[in-house]
Amino acid sequence: MIKLGIIGAGRIGKVHGESVMRFVKGATVKAIADPFMNDAIKAWAAELGIPECYTDYKRILADPEIEAVLICSSTDTHSPISLEAIAAGKHVFCEKPVDHDVEKIKTVIEALKGSKLKYQVGFNRRFDHNFRAAERAVREGKIGELNTLSITSRDPGAPPVEYIKVSGGIFLDMTIHDFDMVRFISGDEVEEVYASGAVLVDPEIGKAGDIDTAIVNLKLKSGAIAVINNCRRASYGYDQRLEAFGSLGQVEVQNDTDSTAVLSDANGVTKEKPKYFFLERYMAAYTAEIESFVRAVEKDTAVEVGVIDGLEPVLIGLAATRSVKEDRPVKIAEIRAEYGL
Amino acid sequence: MIKLGIIGAGRIGKVHGESVMRFVKGATVKAIADPFMNDAIKAWAAELGIPECYTDYKRILADPEIEAVLICSSTDTHSPISLEAIAAGKHVFCEKPVDHDVEKIKTVIEALKGSKLKYQVGFNRRFDHNFRAAERAVREGKIGELNTLSITSRDPGAPPVEYIKVSGGIFLDMTIHDFDMVRFISGDEVEEVYASGAVLVDPEIGKAGDIDTAIVNLKLKSGAIAVINNCRRASYGYDQRLEAFGSLGQVEVQNDTDSTAVLSDANGVTKEKPKYFFLERYMAAYTAEIESFVRAVEKDTAVEVGVIDGLEPVLIGLAATRSVKEDRPVKIAEIRAEYGL
Amino acid sequence: MIKLGIIGAGRIGKVHGESVMRFVKGATVKAIADPFMNDAIKAWAAELGIPECYTDYKRILADPEIEAVLICSSTDTHSPISLEAIAAGKHVFCEKPVDHDVEKIKTVIEALKGSKLKYQVGFNRRFDHNFRAAERAVREGKIGELNTLSITSRDPGAPPVEYIKVSGGIFLDMTIHDFDMVRFISGDEVEEVYASGAVLVDPEIGKAGDIDTAIVNLKLKSGAIAVINNCRRASYGYDQRLEAFGSLGQVEVQNDTDSTAVLSDANGVTKEKPKYFFLERYMAAYTAEIESFVRAVEKDTAVEVGVIDGLEPVLIGLAATRSVKEDRPVKIAEIRAEYGL
Amino acid sequence: MIKLGIIGAGRIGKVHGESVMRFVKGATVKAIADPFMNDAIKAWAAELGIPECYTDYKRILADPEIEAVLICSSTDTHSPISLEAIAAGKHVFCEKPVDHDVEKIKTVIEALKGSKLKYQVGFNRRFDHNFRAAERAVREGKIGELNTLSITSRDPGAPPVEYIKVSGGIFLDMTIHDFDMVRFISGDEVEEVYASGAVLVDPEIGKAGDIDTAIVNLKLKSGAIAVINNCRRASYGYDQRLEAFGSLGQVEVQNDTDSTAVLSDANGVTKEKPKYFFLERYMAAYTAEIESFVRAVEKDTAVEVGVIDGLEPVLIGLAATRSVKEDRPVKIAEIRAEYGL
Repeated sequence: MIKLGIIGAGRIGKVHGESVMRFVKGATVKAIADPFMNDAIKAWAAELGIPECYTDYKRILADPEIEAVLICSSTDTHSPISLEAIAAGKHVFCEKPVDHDVEKIKTVIEALKGSKLKYQVGFNRRFDHNFRAAERAVREGKIGELNTLSITSRDPGAPPVEYIKVSGGIFLDMTIHDFDMVRFISGDEVEEVYASGAVLVDPEIGKAGDIDTAIVNLKLKSGAIAVINNCRRASYGYDQRLEAFGSLGQVEVQNDTDSTAVLSDANGVTKEKPKYFFLERYMAAYTAEIESFVRAVEKDTAVEVGVIDGLEPVLIGLAATRSVKEDRPVKIAEIRAEYGL
Repeated sequence: MIKLGIIGAGRIGKVHGESVMRFVKGATVKAIADPFMNDAIKAWAAELGIPECYTDYKRILADPEIEAVLICSSTDTHSPISLEAIAAGKHVFCEKPVDHDVEKIKTVIEALKGSKLKYQVGFNRRFDHNFRAAERAVREGKIGELNTLSITSRDPGAPPVEYIKVSGGIFLDMTIHDFDMVRFISGDEVEEVYASGAVLVDPEIGKAGDIDTAIVNLKLKSGAIAVINNCRRASYGYDQRLEAFGSLGQVEVQNDTDSTAVLSDANGVTKEKPKYFFLERYMAAYTAEIESFVRAVEKDTAVEVGVIDGLEPVLIGLAATRSVKEDRPVKIAEIRAEYGL
Repeated sequence: MIKLGIIGAGRIGKVHGESVMRFVKGATVKAIADPFMNDAIKAWAAELGIPECYTDYKRILADPEIEAVLICSSTDTHSPISLEAIAAGKHVFCEKPVDHDVEKIKTVIEALKGSKLKYQVGFNRRFDHNFRAAERAVREGKIGELNTLSITSRDPGAPPVEYIKVSGGIFLDMTIHDFDMVRFISGDEVEEVYASGAVLVDPEIGKAGDIDTAIVNLKLKSGAIAVINNCRRASYGYDQRLEAFGSLGQVEVQNDTDSTAVLSDANGVTKEKPKYFFLERYMAAYTAEIESFVRAVEKDTAVEVGVIDGLEPVLIGLAATRSVKEDRPVKIAEIRAEYGL
Repeated sequence: MIKLGIIGAGRIGKVHGESVMRFVKGATVKAIADPFMNDAIKAWAAELGIPECYTDYKRILADPEIEAVLICSSTDTHSPISLEAIAAGKHVFCEKPVDHDVEKIKTVIEALKGSKLKYQVGFNRRFDHNFRAAERAVREGKIGELNTLSITSRDPGAPPVEYIKVSGGIFLDMTIHDFDMVRFISGDEVEEVYASGAVLVDPEIGKAGDIDTAIVNLKLKSGAIAVINNCRRASYGYDQRLEAFGSLGQVEVQNDTDSTAVLSDANGVTKEKPKYFFLERYMAAYTAEIESFVRAVEKDTAVEVGVIDGLEPVLIGLAATRSVKEDRPVKIAEIRAEYGL
């Protein structure tokens, strides 16, 4: 039985806690830590059977029984706590992004060099049943050589402008999942990015220096081209689809709905909207990524989403940000060179 | 915290055990009993945190801490154990069918008279997200007055002929779910049945005195007409759909699939087959029905599927069986009269 | 160039006239006759290039240049004019039904005995692209042996009660197309019928002695079972679908729509309703049936829908009518015997 | 009755001839001209009822009875014949493109100045039932303000390399339809283009200096962003879809198929591929555009696709061509300035 500690008891920390305690065989959560630990969290932990609740995450790192930690704290703490956890000899599952700052990600990569510790990044969508089916079709050659990959990714509503100001911008905050998806589905790397952005949802987002709508072109090493279609708000819910088109055919995945019900009446033939929220759409994916991490620790196998998978989307995001600002295509090599990568 | 006992540790007993221990708040399984109790069951129970494993279910009935039992034993024991459990003052969740013998169901109904005990029958499909969406559309008037209801219900493969011989026949074994669904969606009662049967899947089923393919017409009290389309084997998986057509429109529900992936290639545009097996299709429904039962016990409210809901589909099944044998429409009143109902 | 005469210049006569003049190579309409010939019909004929307009159809039968006639007059005249046309040595395309009276159909069959004249009945749905695709899948063995066949056939709105009174009843007027479809898709014959009927659309229809909603079970010679789901009114349009289920799979066909547009908004994901009217849905099928008839005349090959195909659905319709009246399954042999067939 | 002349009796000239003679009321084709006039064309014309067949199109221009001409000759002759036809006082329907050379289009624009002659360009997709439904939804405000527009446009197979060499390149030959579609759906103008191209279908296309796969970003005046996804070959047929996403929702249109048949078997749930060829997909659209042109002539109303609609996509195509060559976004104003527009 692998004992885990969870650092951060916010929404996503709780999601992972419930996954481990209910579904993941061979693992249990021994402790959860949060600087704002309170009675509600303690009651939640007690009901699930998590024995320890701390204010200070260092107590988790100090516990020799705990083999691995799930870092679910605020984004700015991901990389420093990663370093501490690695130093303490813990395997790490770190929520995305590792950091917005490439230099800080580099310190984590450095710390892992020569280490046998597992380090998995929380790109949950790689574990979604739909995207996984698309990836499998591509990998198994069902569509032949990949020609183009189109990703549609729209949130049901924009976050508060206060959040947007500290988010790193749409490309590092939201599109980063899609950059990861491009790499996941194609099994390839991005060479150049051109991004078109617009402020069409909320002028306040523009005032905050960000955009809310974007089309991003990505040239891949193989010559294939990807395109991402983003918006911060879709009236009909959380829109997460993709189409991978290749020499032999195309695989596409659609949204999930709460039911398959279709109503035909005088107004038309109407089915349900997509599931509205990322937690609904990706709940099973969250469990699957933790399951995958626990298996990697248990069997000493490679993680499915490593620290480099945490770095590359940030580089692409920086290139996209610059592309919009300077209205020109930006090579990833340009970004990479600036960071000595 | 309501303490439950599970009687029968077969496939469905385990499904319910996992639902309670993982998902249903305010309830726990204190004990599970099975005449063939063994180490594998004990290990399963231990992992879930079920403390007691018995060979004799009477130990569950004797435990004053246990408020309610889930009867998951073989069909022929459902009604006698129901009687014992009621006598012991336990709330009962009984897997379908209560019995194939109407007289035995009557003894259970009798035993419940004047009692405040909850008695829920395991018609899990009422808790399926798709059928529930259809029922809600009908109940909310989205289709106006119900005119016709069409149910397609096909298994992925026929059970062994040995099973068929003791199953009570297709109408009591398989179609009984669809009879329940007719009552659930329509909110109405069946008055007359005409069934056409054929042996088209396996001649051995015919030799065993049963049919494997059927179309069943049902006239409802309101004047609406229902039709059920059954087959013991569908090459493409577990086919569970319905269409409710009314004065203002139609609501239909389709099958669930493992993913929304669609492959377009030189052969056509292909999506996934329906989920293959009833446990895959209805897993969430199994949890929801137990959740519903626990809430009824906890809050002393009416169960969603009561003992009468266990009786009526058996009466319809007997009428359908007679209809095929005598090639004539059979009124439910005819069956009812024979049992003094 | 085969010269045709059209008898009857109502809606369907015009449909056929336009098909021939615009699409069917190797044929032309030389004359059209209608007892209510008027300037509007003459203008329509002139624009299409039809040279002759008569009040009396006998002038068409008397014209030695005209090889074939399309009988599009009122139903009660179909069989007598058929007899006259055959006597005049004309090939005949006769709108459905040949007659509601089996004796009269028998006289047409008798008249054709030993003749080399072509006689085609206007079951246009056999030429619909969707139903044809289903039939081809069945014929090519894509679904293996046919087990069950489900047909949904609903009109967008009920005809006037005055029409219903002289229509022969729903089974001879509306379901007759579906009886033909059962024979077309299955390539088999019906042995027994059980029909459930109800008056749910309009009580006036009930007062006129008819029903407006029906579920019809049909047992086929092969042992397969068909079921037809009829209603005189569907709020969402003309609903024409079928599912053929067999040992290897199922083929289904859906409705046509005016476009593939799908709107996703806060209310749901909405596509278009089915094409509303039979002329819209089946326009291409009307042309295809006339094309098929002209080819049979031109090349002296068998027609695709012969006079027997005009007889059998009437027998099934009579059996269904009796089934509802007497609430019992009725064998086609019973009807056949009464007519010495 | 408006008399038309068709210049060019190739594939598309015949399509228009058949549309006029079969479907378009109030118009007829008096003459067709082709430098390679032959017996086959004459037979085709005779069957349709087109009286005159010429080798020299000037005979059409000289015929005072002919009010309008359809220019269906080779692309390089479109603009010179347009000029001659305008000089001869004929209304013109000109197949797309007016020319690849902006200067030549300008001469046509110049020639039309002050004239009351109608000049329509053959962007047939504007008359497709699907795209028209999307355009109507956008125009009627169903999706609110347009945010992004995604067009997928793939041919079933690449043309011969010899054709590609003289085609003007993918953007002027193939994508030009999509540039028109962006303008049609958005009702807006393009300001800037960035195009990514690749040679993934056939290396010979690359050797000929062209690309066969492209993703094109277009910034519109309103701030909305469009993206076009092109490929010269799709294994599954002619892929023509779009999604218009806005502040209130999304409208998408899918491909047409030959039937709605869906086969479910052990391999999956398979529907038909898209219609394979542009003539199949757009046949009704070809008729509708000619109908529209004839109405504009008849009623002296504005054409639906004017000469400016012939110019703008060429400017966008030139910008896209330069964008790929120089790997940078190109403003339409840059192209426009070079032509003094």
